[in-house]
Amino acid sequence: MAEQTVYKPGLDGIIATETNISYLDVDAEEIVIRGYELIELAENKQYLDLVHLLLRGELPTNSEKASLEEELKREYSLPENFFNLFELLPEQTHPMDALRTGISALAGHDTDLNEREEEQTKHKAIRLLAKIPNIVANSYHILHHKQPVAPKQELPYSANFLYMITGKEPTEKEAAYFDQSLMVYSEHEMPNSTFTARVIASTNSDIYGSLTGAVASLKGNLHGGANEAVMYMLLEGKTIDGFRNLLYEKLRNKEKIMGFGHRVYMKKMDPRAALMKEALRELAEEKGRMDLYEMCDAGEELMREEKGLYPNLDYYAAPVYYLLDIPIDLYTPIFYAARTVGLCAHISEQHANNKLFRPRVHYTGPRNLHP
Amino acid sequence: MAEQTVYKPGLDGIIATETNISYLDVDAEEIVIRGYELIELAENKQYLDLVHLLLRGELPTNSEKASLEEELKREYSLPENFFNLFELLPEQTHPMDALRTGISALAGHDTDLNEREEEQTKHKAIRLLAKIPNIVANSYHILHHKQPVAPKQELPYSANFLYMITGKEPTEKEAAYFDQSLMVYSEHEMPNSTFTARVIASTNSDIYGSLTGAVASLKGNLHGGANEAVMYMLLEGKTIDGFRNLLYEKLRNKEKIMGFGHRVYMKKMDPRAALMKEALRELAEEKGRMDLYEMCDAGEELMREEKGLYPNLDYYAAPVYYLLDIPIDLYTPIFYAARTVGLCAHISEQHANNKLFRPRVHYTGPRNLHP
Repeated sequence: MAEQTVYKPGLDGIIATETNISYLDVDAEEIVIRGYELIELAENKQYLDLVHLLLRGELPTNSEKASLEEELKREYSLPENFFNLFELLPEQTHPMDALRTGISALAGHDTDLNEREEEQTKHKAIRLLAKIPNIVANSYHILHHKQPVAPKQELPYSANFLYMITGKEPTEKEAAYFDQSLMVYSEHEMPNSTFTARVIASTNSDIYGSLTGAVASLKGNLHGGANEAVMYMLLEGKTIDGFRNLLYEKLRNKEKIMGFGHRVYMKKMDPRAALMKEALRELAEEKGRMDLYEMCDAGEELMREEKGLYPNLDYYAAPVYYLLDIPIDLYTPIFYAARTVGLCAHISEQHANNKLFRPRVHYTGPRNLHP
Repeated sequence: MAEQTVYKPGLDGIIATETNISYLDVDAEEIVIRGYELIELAENKQYLDLVHLLLRGELPTNSEKASLEEELKREYSLPENFFNLFELLPEQTHPMDALRTGISALAGHDTDLNEREEEQTKHKAIRLLAKIPNIVANSYHILHHKQPVAPKQELPYSANFLYMITGKEPTEKEAAYFDQSLMVYSEHEMPNSTFTARVIASTNSDIYGSLTGAVASLKGNLHGGANEAVMYMLLEGKTIDGFRNLLYEKLRNKEKIMGFGHRVYMKKMDPRAALMKEALRELAEEKGRMDLYEMCDAGEELMREEKGLYPNLDYYAAPVYYLLDIPIDLYTPIFYAARTVGLCAHISEQHANNKLFRPRVHYTGPRNLHP
């Protein structure tokens, strides 16, 4: 260990891997997904286009997209008695913990679990993309002693996801904004959960294990859990003035304020936040809740002026989900469901060109003690 | 991102964190655990001493050790109906997947789940150390349609673990070697599973999530799964000559041979392997299975001569577990159970001085595509 190494806490700025999946180009303010700019994709395409792009490396033709959707629909259903699992969990179980337990348990139902070939992994990914929305929505219903909502084959993929959550068929506009939110959550280079999935995959562990670990990562309130925290803060604020006062109070107490700032973007606006802000404006107008939009806007302005911090995706995705009548506890599980495809692309890439992750440490403890 | 960064696949040689828990001093050939040398501890102490050392930072007095054991024994039992979970899993479920699902589900039973204070985390760790052997042994029995084996309060901690696995009370010698194996598996700086646990913990996620992710990591056959692979290889070899032929064949086919080499030790002997080799010799003598010892010894010699590779811990732990009548499928779960204490120490350290893990990538894909 004569080699000198620089220690960067949190691996800040350290290159963890090569990838051709995605890249945050902070200078150009672009989120690059397999060569395309995410915001341009989100404005012109649909979630299933991104699923195809992420898993297959290119945007689908119409017929490729149709057969992807058919394949997904064939795989919606969960193994017999699978929901009994959620009936056994204590009522207080966090929806992310229910999801984590569900994905973990699903592994036992895969008869080709040890298969690591790229094509096999991609089929597993599709099966998981089909089943995870079902797990997210219905583990929640079961933990709340409600009947599961069976998937509706006639609805598009993302409309069906929203339907299983709320129990009512979404309008076209609602379905479109939900679909767009799934797009902007689908992939984002190397956040903690993607890194977790690749670290696990590098032991030659399977896709279920990697995805299970990523749920655990995304649950943390420094990562995916932030979107829920944003919504509770907005609800606590109630009005523009109330929200501004709340933010000032948090600033005075030096509390961390969720929904602002991002390790990589730093002092720039998260481009995804701008898109969701626009979605919020349109949904708020339609639903007569412009007060919510204005509250968010006022908070954005306050934080920029006071701290030079910009909103991230979670800040605007949270009120969008609120206006779509999604229970707050499901914001992070939905983020996870949307991100599953990105995670699967990374797991597949890791298995295809693997090197075990095994860093070292700086030891700061004592030496030469004897029992 | 003008900063130049060196890319080391697998973060090889990169410092991931500061820690005062443990350190592999490759030059001195020492595994340092809070200042003590692991091999010296394993020769003079017991597993519960290491549990105290890892969680509390120092070796226990006799009365501290006794109260630790009492605390563990009070926490052996699992929530009511918890075993029903394992009855729902398909029979083919891998024991590591059952363990992963079990730890994940346990989170819902913790009424202080969101508590991250150091003292709370350490109490959670003790509860998990008490319950995980119960989950390991009895999820296996249930998946094999056998009755669970209830813990025996009158046995020492590790003897009880072995008893729950085999259903018979171990001899003193058996219990002592099993205890020693738990010690050498207890902590090892920053292997993939420990890294996984810390990466997850850094999002401010909880101890159950971090431990669940670590199970997924340890399952991989480039990590914990190696000990099972070693035993299957020994059984396939059958005799000294058969085993030598099998190794030659694998070398000719350029197959990876499990149980040899280690990223950090490289061309040196894993000091833990030497200890387990001695345990194997003594157990083999007692049980009239010196053929197994000689087979392992012949394989060690062959690999050193042919490839300059040395056995790692898994190579000698596997036949020790075999002679203790432990089902091969449980070797990795036992490794995990032994390592839980090290993982908990790292999770606690990460939470106490946290920085979110969020590395970057080298993007090798296309740019400037448009939908």
